[in-house]
Amino acid sequence: MSGLITLTTDFGLRDPFVGIMKGVLLSICPSAGLVDLTHEIPPQDILAGGLALEAAIPFFPPGTVHLAVVDPGVGSARRAIAVRAGGYYLVGPDNGLFTFAIEGAGWTAVSITAPEYRLAEVSRTFHGRDVLAPAAAYLAVGVPLECLGPAVSDPERVRRPGCHLEGDELVGEVLAADRFGNLITSVPAARLAEIPGPGGVALDVAGRRLRGPVGAYAEGGDGEPTVIVGSTGRLEIFVRGGSAQDELGAGRGAIVRVRRAE
Amino acid sequence: MSGLITLTTDFGLRDPFVGIMKGVLLSICPSAGLVDLTHEIPPQDILAGGLALEAAIPFFPPGTVHLAVVDPGVGSARRAIAVRAGGYYLVGPDNGLFTFAIEGAGWTAVSITAPEYRLAEVSRTFHGRDVLAPAAAYLAVGVPLECLGPAVSDPERVRRPGCHLEGDELVGEVLAADRFGNLITSVPAARLAEIPGPGGVALDVAGRRLRGPVGAYAEGGDGEPTVIVGSTGRLEIFVRGGSAQDELGAGRGAIVRVRRAE
Amino acid sequence: MSGLITLTTDFGLRDPFVGIMKGVLLSICPSAGLVDLTHEIPPQDILAGGLALEAAIPFFPPGTVHLAVVDPGVGSARRAIAVRAGGYYLVGPDNGLFTFAIEGAGWTAVSITAPEYRLAEVSRTFHGRDVLAPAAAYLAVGVPLECLGPAVSDPERVRRPGCHLEGDELVGEVLAADRFGNLITSVPAARLAEIPGPGGVALDVAGRRLRGPVGAYAEGGDGEPTVIVGSTGRLEIFVRGGSAQDELGAGRGAIVRVRRAE
Repeated sequence: MSGLITLTTDFGLRDPFVGIMKGVLLSICPSAGLVDLTHEIPPQDILAGGLALEAAIPFFPPGTVHLAVVDPGVGSARRAIAVRAGGYYLVGPDNGLFTFAIEGAGWTAVSITAPEYRLAEVSRTFHGRDVLAPAAAYLAVGVPLECLGPAVSDPERVRRPGCHLEGDELVGEVLAADRFGNLITSVPAARLAEIPGPGGVALDVAGRRLRGPVGAYAEGGDGEPTVIVGSTGRLEIFVRGGSAQDELGAGRGAIVRVRRAE
Repeated sequence: MSGLITLTTDFGLRDPFVGIMKGVLLSICPSAGLVDLTHEIPPQDILAGGLALEAAIPFFPPGTVHLAVVDPGVGSARRAIAVRAGGYYLVGPDNGLFTFAIEGAGWTAVSITAPEYRLAEVSRTFHGRDVLAPAAAYLAVGVPLECLGPAVSDPERVRRPGCHLEGDELVGEVLAADRFGNLITSVPAARLAEIPGPGGVALDVAGRRLRGPVGAYAEGGDGEPTVIVGSTGRLEIFVRGGSAQDELGAGRGAIVRVRRAE
Repeated sequence: MSGLITLTTDFGLRDPFVGIMKGVLLSICPSAGLVDLTHEIPPQDILAGGLALEAAIPFFPPGTVHLAVVDPGVGSARRAIAVRAGGYYLVGPDNGLFTFAIEGAGWTAVSITAPEYRLAEVSRTFHGRDVLAPAAAYLAVGVPLECLGPAVSDPERVRRPGCHLEGDELVGEVLAADRFGNLITSVPAARLAEIPGPGGVALDVAGRRLRGPVGAYAEGGDGEPTVIVGSTGRLEIFVRGGSAQDELGAGRGAIVRVRRAE
């Protein structure tokens, strides 16, 4: 165990909810190191939560426990799960939030039901505090995953926004806009090799044709949306010193088509 | 001592004020664990700060020092106080911020005046950095409360938004809206037993009559504000997948009347 | 070494970028204490980042590593640098961000180029993760500054917004508005002695003449912008219980002229 627990929620930082979860974590595992991934996942946006986890997990040490609460179904019949996968742990609602974190590597999941590893009173509206934070803290303390409850073989999944080849084009979509207005697409740069021909690409989005990928933000033209390979290896669209989101009026879900530049 | 210090302010996270307080805390108590409750208390909103503390304190380990700075009177004659109450410590301005944290249990309070437990220079505008953070850190280090200054027997209090029985109705008010637009009321679910009769309740607010309490958010009707028992044991109003605050156009201070459902 | 690393960025907290940098830091230096100064530096605002660092650094213990990423030139030819100055370390892009942090005291700077002290793969868009966080963590671990790369004798500088005497007036400008709408000026209170004559001052800004400095926010008149000595020793303009920024319609860059009050 690294004794490290990350937190990812849609709670925002205005209310004391995140701080309260940390009180629970440190009451059970006083030596835990706590790191916030983000608490600004759009309310109940499971896909955005899953993508944030996917981007972050590879940069944390082995044994890290990733606690994530984006939970529109709190209090309903949806399960709470804990997962061991690829050398790390995941704790959260069973609603697809961990879809991308358990791709590829093997994993083991349990439903968190053991009463001795949750708070004595469980509210109807705040399982992050009463069920999930305790489970994460007990994992960090060294309680075996299997003690938290019975095995789960069919965790929920969500669809990953795709990227496919249509003729000579890779077709994907915008996944998100970041704080700078950069648009992250679902098109991995590694798949550009599937498009026949040599050289750069042209990316069509929102009725505009963009060029790239360039090697640095500094190579973008003035006010001109341009393509670059972003920090998760996907094509991104930026405007140097500006906002591609604003310039293109495009956001999540916008279709992008990538072909060889003429 | 747990060596744990929480921070609650109205400073926001845009300016480096909170980070600077943490530098002071760790300069004096390098081993302290620091947890942010929230820094988004509305500017100078003592009641909101007090309610955030009340909600969070029970979930922290014994010995935790809660440092809170919501301080419209900084630099004026208002005292800075440190309080030991119910196994934890409170440090902040003496303006009512700790009203709810010292209800019930016994407490001991002092006015923070000892010059050896503050920074060498005290500014007129940032006692959080110069007076309160040092006091909190010295408590975490193990300095006895009584060393910080003379006893205080009459800390300031603020009025707690109430809940009272009028005939067959419990009358309270909306305390706050959370990030999801849920409206938290001042009506504890435990007091529903005071209303004669069996069964569910009807809650009147903003000209609407709502039903509840339901057992989970999932039981709310489409777009229909509904009552649930929230994570602090109070009645809350939510809209499934939406915002009760927006749907009702109601916020803090709105009167709620709770009767038996017909 | 204190094992303490602060983080200052313009990344915001919506995306997981800051959390990812913390994963890198803790993967290399698991015992590091991490403190956020602020992640709400306006995008690419090097001056604001530099002023935040200047305000915070004196309050951190010796040996602290200050990691700062406000980096419009990421991926271009701008260098990444690490600096030892006045008992602390600075790590960030070489674009002037450290101008104020290296004033006065002696300093030693290197260009971060050693491949063994960065991540194996360096992206084009996120040197905070791939180059700067590793360098900061290795410094916290105890790697000598000089191992990170060759010496740099000419780090970039930015202009410090000034304050100069014109006849009987000190002329400066508004540096920033804080969360409360207080306007921080570039006029140090210590320089008021340069204005001939005794007594208080009058400050002209945005066509208004303000009085001060008063001793506490409580001494400001109702709705009346007033001058006080702020927490960094500079003149600040506030409105008691309100926002000087809104009341004056003035912000960064607005000229202020300070003379003796008549």
